[in-house]
Amino acid sequence: MGQSHTEVKKLIEELGEIGLIERISKKFLVDKQTVTVGAGEDDCAVIDIAKAKAGHKYLVVTTDTLQESTHFPTGISPFQMGWSAVAVNLSDIAAMGAHPFAFTIAMGIPAHTETVFVDEVVEGIEKCASAYNTAVVGGDITKSRELILTGTCLGFADNPVRRAGAKVGDLICVTGSLGNAALGMNIIKKGTKLKVPERVKEVAKKALFQPVPRVKEGVILADSGLVTAMIDISDGLALSLAELAKSSNVGFEIYEDKVPVLSEEIRSAWEGDLDLSMLDPRELAFYFGGDYELLFTVGAKTLENEGLMKRMQKEMKMSIIGTVVPSGEGIYFKKGDKKEKMSMKGYRHF
Amino acid sequence: MGQSHTEVKKLIEELGEIGLIERISKKFLVDKQTVTVGAGEDDCAVIDIAKAKAGHKYLVVTTDTLQESTHFPTGISPFQMGWSAVAVNLSDIAAMGAHPFAFTIAMGIPAHTETVFVDEVVEGIEKCASAYNTAVVGGDITKSRELILTGTCLGFADNPVRRAGAKVGDLICVTGSLGNAALGMNIIKKGTKLKVPERVKEVAKKALFQPVPRVKEGVILADSGLVTAMIDISDGLALSLAELAKSSNVGFEIYEDKVPVLSEEIRSAWEGDLDLSMLDPRELAFYFGGDYELLFTVGAKTLENEGLMKRMQKEMKMSIIGTVVPSGEGIYFKKGDKKEKMSMKGYRHF
Repeated sequence: MGQSHTEVKKLIEELGEIGLIERISKKFLVDKQTVTVGAGEDDCAVIDIAKAKAGHKYLVVTTDTLQESTHFPTGISPFQMGWSAVAVNLSDIAAMGAHPFAFTIAMGIPAHTETVFVDEVVEGIEKCASAYNTAVVGGDITKSRELILTGTCLGFADNPVRRAGAKVGDLICVTGSLGNAALGMNIIKKGTKLKVPERVKEVAKKALFQPVPRVKEGVILADSGLVTAMIDISDGLALSLAELAKSSNVGFEIYEDKVPVLSEEIRSAWEGDLDLSMLDPRELAFYFGGDYELLFTVGAKTLENEGLMKRMQKEMKMSIIGTVVPSGEGIYFKKGDKKEKMSMKGYRHF
Repeated sequence: MGQSHTEVKKLIEELGEIGLIERISKKFLVDKQTVTVGAGEDDCAVIDIAKAKAGHKYLVVTTDTLQESTHFPTGISPFQMGWSAVAVNLSDIAAMGAHPFAFTIAMGIPAHTETVFVDEVVEGIEKCASAYNTAVVGGDITKSRELILTGTCLGFADNPVRRAGAKVGDLICVTGSLGNAALGMNIIKKGTKLKVPERVKEVAKKALFQPVPRVKEGVILADSGLVTAMIDISDGLALSLAELAKSSNVGFEIYEDKVPVLSEEIRSAWEGDLDLSMLDPRELAFYFGGDYELLFTVGAKTLENEGLMKRMQKEMKMSIIGTVVPSGEGIYFKKGDKKEKMSMKGYRHF
């Protein structure tokens, strides 16, 4: 370990591996009653099952990696990188309708990273996890060429909602609104060429940089017993529809104008000047992704029951965007009598 | 996706992300009674807790990353890369004395990787996991600059053995033998300059390339109730002693000549020509690592009880290498009346 020349820019290689692990671990304090051994304390984290699972029948597990060169858009803060690494995993937990409870984070960090940068990443991890009652119980640190964050999240569920289960005649729904993160990306890429109010820029970029996983909504939907299939939309609505169609062996008829494009917050910040045609709403809502909403199907009869429907809509923002059709019909937009096949575009690594 | 020009070298970017996930997932078939949703099937894996935990009280979790530029020595095969990514995590599970049961793997893969390379990595993952009754339940695939494998392993335990717990007067023990992986690395680095029989080369390189996690031994040691503290030695004996000393707030007196250097297999392959002085046994056993053995302490009275001692030694190879001393004395080699402070060298990322 060399000597730091200034106090301002201390690098993690000067801190050393043990110093770094200690520094990070103490940010992840946990309830010792349930997590009897936490981050940095031993070879493994130790969780008291009876206390953690609270009677649930199933343990659910997911893992997801974010890395600087692939996943992080220009302008994202270190805090938001950390936040996103947790949120992307929580979104998968939400898509099963499970309760998240524990998280581990494997961090690949370049040697010349400033300590304050790592501190902020760690703060983002901690803030996102604790916002959803999830304990960061352990992790790993490796020297790497770029920042790589691999999270693994554990949750509990009684009735995990599968991707398979949608039936012909079911209604297709989404939580929240779509296209916010895509608008954020448009704003970054087009810069001043896109005439957008400052407040809209701010909100759209935050949607991209700091996605909100629908954990609460996932649990409500699973507990309702009405949902026949569910998936999250992190890679874009079109690809998520394709995955759901494949798993359930069905097709989808989509009413494009029912798809909630852009949040109320963005629309109201835009006021009278919003011209969606300038933005290509289909590109925003179907082919980009980054909004961690849930896509799910419910039995058509359920939604004919106004009481149930209203109760669900009171607890969360949700929109009916289409109907489940036989698999032979594929996935298409329906406008009046016209059917238009949906392109299968979205985020793919390979 | 482009068209493959030859059938021989098919690249994963031609296979596409969905094709790749399908190809990998079907290698990870699991017992559907316990793992109700496995790899590639949904947003999360789903595990029936009651069936998996078999009455154990604690869930243990660990995560560890291996990456090409940092962790993989020259000559390691793709199979062995996959094997190692599981073994490094199983070794942490073993160090708690826990039973591993589920594993997830996040793979960062360069786009131009050949499909057959990925197939072999996946086979290594599957073979190591199944050798230790561990189901690969899920994972993630990302495009990355180099091969990066982040595993997360779940296990169950009733009495997880901590690093804290060693008491002054306890005996210090290790499983198996040390320095085998270090010899393998020496052979690779020095090439023909090191005169070593072919069979020794083979065995030593395998020790480095395909480490054996001491899962069975960890469980026996934990179940014995005799072990006061335990840690694995993947980063070298010296650093593991330092970690254990810090956690237990003790010091260690080490009898260097009691440390089992090189396996019986290597020693017998070497026959009469073995000259340890040529190899610097201290460097091999203390300062390198790569042998996934367990370092543990037991109450001195336990080992005075010959019956117990013999039973444990019958079930595994283990050696007593020192005594726990007060923390003020630090960690030192004891030879006759002479004490020599141990250097703290070993593998560190930063």
